[in-house]
Amino acid sequence: MIACSIVGATSFTGNELIRILSRHPHVKIGSLTTRSDEKIFARDIVPSLGKTNDLLIEKYNFQKIIRTSDVVFIALPHTLAMKVAGEFYDQDKIVIDLSADYRLKRADLYQEWYQEKHLRKDLLKQAVYGLPEVNRHLIKTADLIANPGCYPTGSLLALYPLIREDLIKRDSIVIDAKSGVSGAGRKLSMATQFSEVDENFGAYKVGRHQHMPEIEQLLSEVAQSKIEVTFVPHLLPVNRGILSTIYVKRKPGVKRDKLAKAFQSFADSEPFVRFLGVGRFPTLKNVQLTNFCEIGIAIDDRSDQVIIISAIDNLIKGASGQAVQNMNIRMGFAEEAGLML
Amino acid sequence: MIACSIVGATSFTGNELIRILSRHPHVKIGSLTTRSDEKIFARDIVPSLGKTNDLLIEKYNFQKIIRTSDVVFIALPHTLAMKVAGEFYDQDKIVIDLSADYRLKRADLYQEWYQEKHLRKDLLKQAVYGLPEVNRHLIKTADLIANPGCYPTGSLLALYPLIREDLIKRDSIVIDAKSGVSGAGRKLSMATQFSEVDENFGAYKVGRHQHMPEIEQLLSEVAQSKIEVTFVPHLLPVNRGILSTIYVKRKPGVKRDKLAKAFQSFADSEPFVRFLGVGRFPTLKNVQLTNFCEIGIAIDDRSDQVIIISAIDNLIKGASGQAVQNMNIRMGFAEEAGLML
Amino acid sequence: MIACSIVGATSFTGNELIRILSRHPHVKIGSLTTRSDEKIFARDIVPSLGKTNDLLIEKYNFQKIIRTSDVVFIALPHTLAMKVAGEFYDQDKIVIDLSADYRLKRADLYQEWYQEKHLRKDLLKQAVYGLPEVNRHLIKTADLIANPGCYPTGSLLALYPLIREDLIKRDSIVIDAKSGVSGAGRKLSMATQFSEVDENFGAYKVGRHQHMPEIEQLLSEVAQSKIEVTFVPHLLPVNRGILSTIYVKRKPGVKRDKLAKAFQSFADSEPFVRFLGVGRFPTLKNVQLTNFCEIGIAIDDRSDQVIIISAIDNLIKGASGQAVQNMNIRMGFAEEAGLML
Amino acid sequence: MIACSIVGATSFTGNELIRILSRHPHVKIGSLTTRSDEKIFARDIVPSLGKTNDLLIEKYNFQKIIRTSDVVFIALPHTLAMKVAGEFYDQDKIVIDLSADYRLKRADLYQEWYQEKHLRKDLLKQAVYGLPEVNRHLIKTADLIANPGCYPTGSLLALYPLIREDLIKRDSIVIDAKSGVSGAGRKLSMATQFSEVDENFGAYKVGRHQHMPEIEQLLSEVAQSKIEVTFVPHLLPVNRGILSTIYVKRKPGVKRDKLAKAFQSFADSEPFVRFLGVGRFPTLKNVQLTNFCEIGIAIDDRSDQVIIISAIDNLIKGASGQAVQNMNIRMGFAEEAGLML
Repeated sequence: MIACSIVGATSFTGNELIRILSRHPHVKIGSLTTRSDEKIFARDIVPSLGKTNDLLIEKYNFQKIIRTSDVVFIALPHTLAMKVAGEFYDQDKIVIDLSADYRLKRADLYQEWYQEKHLRKDLLKQAVYGLPEVNRHLIKTADLIANPGCYPTGSLLALYPLIREDLIKRDSIVIDAKSGVSGAGRKLSMATQFSEVDENFGAYKVGRHQHMPEIEQLLSEVAQSKIEVTFVPHLLPVNRGILSTIYVKRKPGVKRDKLAKAFQSFADSEPFVRFLGVGRFPTLKNVQLTNFCEIGIAIDDRSDQVIIISAIDNLIKGASGQAVQNMNIRMGFAEEAGLML
Repeated sequence: MIACSIVGATSFTGNELIRILSRHPHVKIGSLTTRSDEKIFARDIVPSLGKTNDLLIEKYNFQKIIRTSDVVFIALPHTLAMKVAGEFYDQDKIVIDLSADYRLKRADLYQEWYQEKHLRKDLLKQAVYGLPEVNRHLIKTADLIANPGCYPTGSLLALYPLIREDLIKRDSIVIDAKSGVSGAGRKLSMATQFSEVDENFGAYKVGRHQHMPEIEQLLSEVAQSKIEVTFVPHLLPVNRGILSTIYVKRKPGVKRDKLAKAFQSFADSEPFVRFLGVGRFPTLKNVQLTNFCEIGIAIDDRSDQVIIISAIDNLIKGASGQAVQNMNIRMGFAEEAGLML
Repeated sequence: MIACSIVGATSFTGNELIRILSRHPHVKIGSLTTRSDEKIFARDIVPSLGKTNDLLIEKYNFQKIIRTSDVVFIALPHTLAMKVAGEFYDQDKIVIDLSADYRLKRADLYQEWYQEKHLRKDLLKQAVYGLPEVNRHLIKTADLIANPGCYPTGSLLALYPLIREDLIKRDSIVIDAKSGVSGAGRKLSMATQFSEVDENFGAYKVGRHQHMPEIEQLLSEVAQSKIEVTFVPHLLPVNRGILSTIYVKRKPGVKRDKLAKAFQSFADSEPFVRFLGVGRFPTLKNVQLTNFCEIGIAIDDRSDQVIIISAIDNLIKGASGQAVQNMNIRMGFAEEAGLML
Repeated sequence: MIACSIVGATSFTGNELIRILSRHPHVKIGSLTTRSDEKIFARDIVPSLGKTNDLLIEKYNFQKIIRTSDVVFIALPHTLAMKVAGEFYDQDKIVIDLSADYRLKRADLYQEWYQEKHLRKDLLKQAVYGLPEVNRHLIKTADLIANPGCYPTGSLLALYPLIREDLIKRDSIVIDAKSGVSGAGRKLSMATQFSEVDENFGAYKVGRHQHMPEIEQLLSEVAQSKIEVTFVPHLLPVNRGILSTIYVKRKPGVKRDKLAKAFQSFADSEPFVRFLGVGRFPTLKNVQLTNFCEIGIAIDDRSDQVIIISAIDNLIKGASGQAVQNMNIRMGFAEEAGLML
């Protein structure tokens, strides 16, 4: 048994972490903290804990977390996480940061996209980008894990098999992504008022969403050459889930079978990736409340266009589930432990 | 004043036609018909008619419609419309067919996509594709108007300015379209049960939706060369509206201004097209319950990718509103008559 | 033609007023005002106005409104409206106040329920409670009309025929009301964030909603004796509409027919009330986007329980449509003018 | 470990049973059956089982179920369940029937409300109404357990403490209940098409819902005198959950404290009932995806009206979770086993 704490436990991703970790066979909860002064019972915001559960969410106390934790999950908004995550890292804790703060390797890029100077440039190299399907070998020994963004998770799992095997033209990638509202986090905003979202649908931050450089960074690493993508996020009138419809051109001579096999062999070796095949596609319902990523593809022989559709639960595989998957890998637990929800 | 009848008045598009025509300044309703035997008051399915409105929907009666109509709107499912539409045409009525039956010029293509032999090939040449923004000059004298599909309307209005002025590469068109549920019509189906649609989202008929050849046909006509598109429709958990996110590559040397001007001049000359500009995008709420199509664009200078987002109400500009717009053009009424809803 | 102005034009009810008044046959818009400094085109928040409409919403300017208005609609939040409404009344304008500020006759009751001292007690007697179906004779000459709340409108129209004819026990009234989210107005609130409302449902302000005294006041006036009600409002995950399920006990000896006739004769004399009969009930879809109130009843002979279900659109019959109905009555226009939407 | 089978495994309640039983610490799955011929993987309709789960749903085979089961759950539609349930009972299996077929003690009442003659009147006396909070002592030895309906579960848990302690007037009970769509089961129906339900709300089967006699039967048993209720169900545009707002009159002299204590002591002794207190009320989100029933109350001293609001997940505490709770009691397992979801 290890002790895990959550900083920012009242956020949506904090809630999901409480839900998952409280049933994890190898975990006991250390501290659950928030910025506010008032103590609250975790069961009041995570009712599935049950009426007798007495876990408390308390005001943030650095020393107490140090004393009570082997692993610290940081579920703070980006720009607020970097300092805190660094301090726990300095105290030799294993840190899993769900914010964007340690995802980009380049501090200048971070500043460009998040409008804040990075305060711990010294740690950017140590941080491992925690997408298990790509970086499992690095995660095994990482003490600072940058948990991927929700959009990048859905997009990267769909593109990785094709880039790895060099099956597509690298300048042809278009990602049309659609996310549920919880992706925006639990914050008061006119854009996420019911009256704005219900019966509505639209794109936002077209070509300028902060998850774009994160996608490009990992794809470029895998390809060992610079890859740029077109990325258009949209807001769905649903609470949970991201569906990404991705358009790429296959390279000349790449056969249908080759494409299908690339996905099938990827999925066969991954506990949380499921390939539905050619002509079968996931919907959000397939993956909601699970840590799975489901993928289906279509191939248009007329135009060499390959269409890849991937679906994840943005709060689980796109955030808290993946964070626990990373912890499992780091601690040597079974990768599925606590994640067959 | 002219007399208009609706065959298939209990369908979603039939209801919208009742709603629009009953307030149209130059129209009186001739007959409203359905396949069932029971007479029903139109106000019982279109409550906005008001409690004293006494319009009746009655069993289909060819002779009565002939006697009571100058214009006949056909709001039947495809494959059922072709015979009926042809019979009214043969009796010298002006026919506006909201089904797909007279949209494709080639009978073989029709049979391929709709799995039925076309029974009135003789009329395919006479039929005019009723997209006013492209074919207004033909609509003015047409006696058989094939009202466009909902997806094609949204996609074609977004692509027409660029194809007409030859600003984009013709082999690069990707249409990622998202539609509300009413697009499927009022029919009993497991796919449109609340439990399937609510909190869900997914693609369907990927690369094989019957609206694809309709889009390709008109684009090819405008371009005077064969154009093929990638078309992926998705089902949104909303009742009304289609948002299309369209990805194309501009031709070398085409400046941002040139692209914006192509849309602005198009919108300036069209009563129901509104261009929001570069970097401003419509959502469904902008156009629901209106006959407007709103368009916004983004241009990525890194990749020459142009992103066009268009929004329409699928039941109005995508069906019944456009049908009335076609009637207005054909009869010489003001094009907006009855359509400022 | 008369000139109408709207103070608070960017609120939900302000938007509906713009939409209705801009198509009203006897109205031209005087001024549309807001508290902010920036001028905005009304068409940008009410897209159905059309792309060429040039109505502007401008910063509030008392003198300009005085110059440009015969009738002033006040669509401000309660407590903010009372001073403004009074000033226009003092300048001999006809004022229709959509807020709660002039609905309660007793200043002490106002202070108790709205936590503000009333600043214009002198006007409380002049103000007429603008429920046309009850107070039409008073509205005809009123210069200060307090437009009813949305919940009270739905409840009072359902109860008025029974109270007027003294058919029910007066201590037995239970109102279980369910409202769409737009009833809360366009304000930023955690309770109306999409993530809180979507897929959720619950009661709020149980037994302490500020619309309760308003309902009791009018019922008591009609009954000429004090009536108290049990009132429980609930929040529905929909945008528009209020459905009220009301439970009362009939007086001994009151027959089913008598009850049905009370509603039928009421509805027969009212342009915007529709009685569906015994055993037929409205749903929200019946009345959304209309100024109608629909009512159905059930009678349980075992228990003498009478169940009345009424439905309205909270923003139209529950607010802006009713405000225009009041204006029509006051100005001697046809009561339906501009309201057959 | 015991072996459990599910007849009707593709229904909504069948799916929930699969989900719960597949993680239950004392259960292995025997057979999962359906009426169709095609074998399907359970994981294809219950994705949370994970991609490697190989549970199959197969065509119904009586002998195979007999061989592979200690407990048989019947998740068939009412009228279809009675024969099947009886046959397993005759073979000495423990039968938990989720349908309505064994809930009513009187065969004539069954026939009146379900329009079918009861085929196994001989078993009606043996069957135990499986509401654990009331009948736990009987469930412990029952071999045919009639699992309560969803509406009755929510209503009875809210009323039981008051009836048991005789705190309210028995002729005053009004139940205004609101249910999500999954309550109607997975069947094709126009009433549950997305276009009918979305953005809509209304009552149905007012005073004639088949769950009414079930509620009255148990309340009368507890009270040892005939109790009749007014019951009005409504359909919410959400997938899961029932919220019941219940209006009763307290008996003269019953103090507020007495009422609160009745609920508190009930909840204190029940693992799945949570009392929120006076003036605090549950919403659906509190209980969705859990086996909990949450209850809050308000008391109006003016009118002696007591308002009780209860919330459950209709598919869990209102169906499959409660069925497993009943099995736990019958088999002597911890009552919470497998139910802290």
